[in-house]
Amino acid sequence: MGRLNINNINPHVRAAEYAVRGELAVKSEELRARLSKGDTSLPFDKVVSANIGNPQQLDQKPITFFRQVLSLLEYPNLLEKEDVLINGLGYKTDVIERAKWLLKQCGSVGAYSASSGVYAIKESIAKFLEKRDGFSADPDHIYLSAGASSGVNTLLHILAESDKSGVLVPIPQYPLYTATLSVLDATCVPYYLDESKAWATDLATIRGAYDKAKADGVDVRAIVVINPGNPTGASLSEEDVRSVIDFASKEKLVIMADEVYQTNVFIGKFHSFKGVLRKLQQENPGKYDDVELASLHSISKGMVGECGHRGGYFELVGFDAEVEAAIYKFVSIMLCAPVIAQCLVELMVNPPQPGEPSFELYDKEYNAVANGLRERANALHKAFEQMEGVECGEPQGAMYLFPSITLSQKAIEAAKSENRTPDEFYCMRLLEATGVCVIPGSGFGQKEGTLHFRTTFLAPGTEWVDRITKFHKEFMDKYR
Amino acid sequence: MGRLNINNINPHVRAAEYAVRGELAVKSEELRARLSKGDTSLPFDKVVSANIGNPQQLDQKPITFFRQVLSLLEYPNLLEKEDVLINGLGYKTDVIERAKWLLKQCGSVGAYSASSGVYAIKESIAKFLEKRDGFSADPDHIYLSAGASSGVNTLLHILAESDKSGVLVPIPQYPLYTATLSVLDATCVPYYLDESKAWATDLATIRGAYDKAKADGVDVRAIVVINPGNPTGASLSEEDVRSVIDFASKEKLVIMADEVYQTNVFIGKFHSFKGVLRKLQQENPGKYDDVELASLHSISKGMVGECGHRGGYFELVGFDAEVEAAIYKFVSIMLCAPVIAQCLVELMVNPPQPGEPSFELYDKEYNAVANGLRERANALHKAFEQMEGVECGEPQGAMYLFPSITLSQKAIEAAKSENRTPDEFYCMRLLEATGVCVIPGSGFGQKEGTLHFRTTFLAPGTEWVDRITKFHKEFMDKYR
Repeated sequence: MGRLNINNINPHVRAAEYAVRGELAVKSEELRARLSKGDTSLPFDKVVSANIGNPQQLDQKPITFFRQVLSLLEYPNLLEKEDVLINGLGYKTDVIERAKWLLKQCGSVGAYSASSGVYAIKESIAKFLEKRDGFSADPDHIYLSAGASSGVNTLLHILAESDKSGVLVPIPQYPLYTATLSVLDATCVPYYLDESKAWATDLATIRGAYDKAKADGVDVRAIVVINPGNPTGASLSEEDVRSVIDFASKEKLVIMADEVYQTNVFIGKFHSFKGVLRKLQQENPGKYDDVELASLHSISKGMVGECGHRGGYFELVGFDAEVEAAIYKFVSIMLCAPVIAQCLVELMVNPPQPGEPSFELYDKEYNAVANGLRERANALHKAFEQMEGVECGEPQGAMYLFPSITLSQKAIEAAKSENRTPDEFYCMRLLEATGVCVIPGSGFGQKEGTLHFRTTFLAPGTEWVDRITKFHKEFMDKYR
Repeated sequence: MGRLNINNINPHVRAAEYAVRGELAVKSEELRARLSKGDTSLPFDKVVSANIGNPQQLDQKPITFFRQVLSLLEYPNLLEKEDVLINGLGYKTDVIERAKWLLKQCGSVGAYSASSGVYAIKESIAKFLEKRDGFSADPDHIYLSAGASSGVNTLLHILAESDKSGVLVPIPQYPLYTATLSVLDATCVPYYLDESKAWATDLATIRGAYDKAKADGVDVRAIVVINPGNPTGASLSEEDVRSVIDFASKEKLVIMADEVYQTNVFIGKFHSFKGVLRKLQQENPGKYDDVELASLHSISKGMVGECGHRGGYFELVGFDAEVEAAIYKFVSIMLCAPVIAQCLVELMVNPPQPGEPSFELYDKEYNAVANGLRERANALHKAFEQMEGVECGEPQGAMYLFPSITLSQKAIEAAKSENRTPDEFYCMRLLEATGVCVIPGSGFGQKEGTLHFRTTFLAPGTEWVDRITKFHKEFMDKYR
């Protein structure tokens, strides 16, 4: 064949797009490196990575209880000096007890666990789900994963029977879905979310996308729902969740519920697909028994924000036993999720309870993060509301705002001359002028003729928001 | 389509086989669970997992320096109490310095790093490679991964242009390669290792396999070499490494050098592909400049044994820039390797040096693990030498012995009646009688008409070896 080149590698990898860490992100890292080498020629002194939900890179502090337990798991010899831990370092007794319990369950965090995870942690997840939803959960159908991304990768691998296998994916979406479907050479069946209804799911739109795909010969197998939404932040009503389940049941689609932002909800409350499914089953005996649901969660987001540890899990409901065996085999090939991250999943689903020694601090830290996120979301939203040509719904959830922008014909022409989409052009100019990295809506998908960008609201302070406001005014003036 | 079932999922996932965590491993976990629930009906009181190289599940202790640093990375507030760390807990100053340095490089271990890893850690790896090989290495071509498995997965994804894309894989091999090629629907081109020459590579055999595949229309793209070998333990001579590089150069094949056992060498010394390639390039100016080499390493094996943390890296030499960009994009989709595992890579490649406070203990612990492995390998080998119908070469490297077994016609018939291969049958009876889990040779591939099994020599003591000896005698007597 000759040497490897871009034209003879796997064409499906070549075709995959992943804007969250694409050109803008790479450029932002270059700028950061220039600044750290003392380059003073740039019009800003700090790069703000608002392109990715990476809480601890910005201001979010890890939860003390979690990290104290992890320190003991990494160096268990510390447990031989309880007096120093307690009197010298301020560790509470529940930290020590939890670490001992976890070490008993996993042996060493340096050893492989079972392929689907440490069994006792799966039991803790099941208890958490029971408490959250009011319905039982079975640890035998729970799989620990290296972040939710790895779980999505597993599930899409199983579903992709051929290039005709299709998966309904919300647009805009987190590009993990389109990128993985591209790598698998399966078919992405996009369905648009309704910006006019705060980015809710619209059943008629889903049905339309499904019917069109079927008519085109696509074997539609599954529907992805991201709730709360990424990049939209939308938090679905129980009614919307019910209607998706009902549709999936009728059409025999696997539901992939990406619920990694389940604790990042500002408006209304989170309705888990598992909980709503069980309610539907209770209300309609027999009717929804064959629904296949995979729900994903993660330690990366929420008030935990431990994405660098790469931990998560998925729960399967209603899957065929042989299919589950194939899933088990598939995850076995990569051996197991990082064990220390599995332990963080345990801590997330089973945090200190009222009355326990670490509860007060845990509660304070947790609420401080939650309130901080809400305040930053509102401040950013307020700034967007005052910008010319920018429209942005109220912050609902997740870690993102996804405003629409209206650009002039002159700006659109300027973008074209650079071979960029107008939103890419805008985001590139923003980065160059302010050091703030956001991702154009085209990286997530958007209705033709509309333009957006996604920004996290994780960065502290308002100075960076002021930079955006100033840039935007100058940009609009320049291309008027 | 109807609900998911084993016949309508991804046929390439269905076809993949991964014996290391297959039926025997699952059964061994069931037996372990029965024992821990107090079941006394089994003829043994402990399950020995010799099926997988999982050092810390057995006796191997983590290196103190490594874990002390990790404890500080997980809970950096400890660094505010240096006196307690030093006087109360016995931490040395180099532990504290290293933790501070790593925290400066990665911010928080709870934050995503760059997709290819923390840059300063890539620089440390480059320095380690320079020291190991005597030739320079470039951090820009080093990629941190979640264990070497994830690196192999990335590289095979890139190579697999179509179902005609072929990869030369040694037989016997670690089944990660065949399983991943199966999932990718690419072609495995097996080449047999020479058991009569201590499982060395044989160029004529490789050439034969290559020619046959070409004649069959396979587009052979790469050759995998596992050195030291898994499951064979074979440690290749420099001559063997040279001949593989020369062959790959002539045929324009990417070399995938799986070198995760590079410090587990008992006989001779380890010859890295990178080092030998650079020597060849020096000796033959211009001739080997276009060789494409990917070398993989891991924190999972060696005297580190931290497989549960899922850390590793690969270095690329001679790859096209656009191909590297595609690799970067591919790894970006899963965001980054676990950051705490990246930090363990740093500690592995840059351990305490003579004269530094932690060196003495590090050196002692490292050598204790190395000597323990050698002793256990020799004890197990000695036992195999005395068993009827078992042949096993001297332990050379890695963590495995791979003896051949000769079974009677009666045993072969008994296996057939259970729909098992004879080696599967033998291993299943061994597990049921002794609680010792080993993997049949058919899980790794073996020449037709030969039978083997792979066992790790990680388990401490000799009691479990005696169990195998006793079982073997009874098995041979029963099926005489």
